[in-house]
Amino acid sequence: MADFPAMDRRGLQILTRQECDDLLAQGKIGRIGLQVAGETLVLPVLYCYVGGTVAFRTAPGEKLDSAWVKAPASFEIDEWDLGQRTGWSVLVKGRFEEVSDPEEVAALEQSGLESWTPEVSHTTWVRITPTSITGRRIALQRF
Amino acid sequence: MADFPAMDRRGLQILTRQECDDLLAQGKIGRIGLQVAGETLVLPVLYCYVGGTVAFRTAPGEKLDSAWVKAPASFEIDEWDLGQRTGWSVLVKGRFEEVSDPEEVAALEQSGLESWTPEVSHTTWVRITPTSITGRRIALQRF
Repeated sequence: MADFPAMDRRGLQILTRQECDDLLAQGKIGRIGLQVAGETLVLPVLYCYVGGTVAFRTAPGEKLDSAWVKAPASFEIDEWDLGQRTGWSVLVKGRFEEVSDPEEVAALEQSGLESWTPEVSHTTWVRITPTSITGRRIALQRF
Repeated sequence: MADFPAMDRRGLQILTRQECDDLLAQGKIGRIGLQVAGETLVLPVLYCYVGGTVAFRTAPGEKLDSAWVKAPASFEIDEWDLGQRTGWSVLVKGRFEEVSDPEEVAALEQSGLESWTPEVSHTTWVRITPTSITGRRIALQRF
């Protein structure tokens, strides 16, 4: 007998933590949400999901650098099929933290995360250690 | 002679306002960034870009309702080609505002924006009147 997924009151399927973890592990691009000088920004990043944390590179000297360390953070991934009107999203909440330990940096460098910005030679790793991970799926043909 | 696009210091092409407008007009799904109780959230929405504003539906009674009205808002769309390592993103900054004028609501209802959440019968329109619209494109094979 199939397990019926839990639904929220909008009719969206609630993803399990395992489903969220799997989607995070499979993804390559997500979006960070952060506050800078009273503004809320949403910016895409190439990321990797290693050891239960979301990690990505940022260029030193960018205006975000000083602002986001230890700041409340969120990270979102999603995927949509417009023809089928289906899709899902996963939201990670936590805090940004610069990765400074050389061993941890070395481990992240070996994660295989690509950089698409060739003009930036030196980068800093930032990670989000999640305080919550939640996800929803819209699937009209769900049964 | 081709115009060479403006680049930022990371080597990203700076999209013109017209390019951003065109991408916003073509898109269907984006993500709002907002602050709720000290947390930064990034949530996907189906949207339409009408009269220079980003508009979307939300269900009354959701916890976000009261929080986001007049709050600093951002809205992001993007698209990626992982194989080609190319993509673009557009960021709209502004403030959320509930659309209450019946004529404006009627105009939005005629925009053709779909709803993918069948359990929600009555919805409220929220819009973001932009204070800034910016975009970037990563295109390694750009010349």
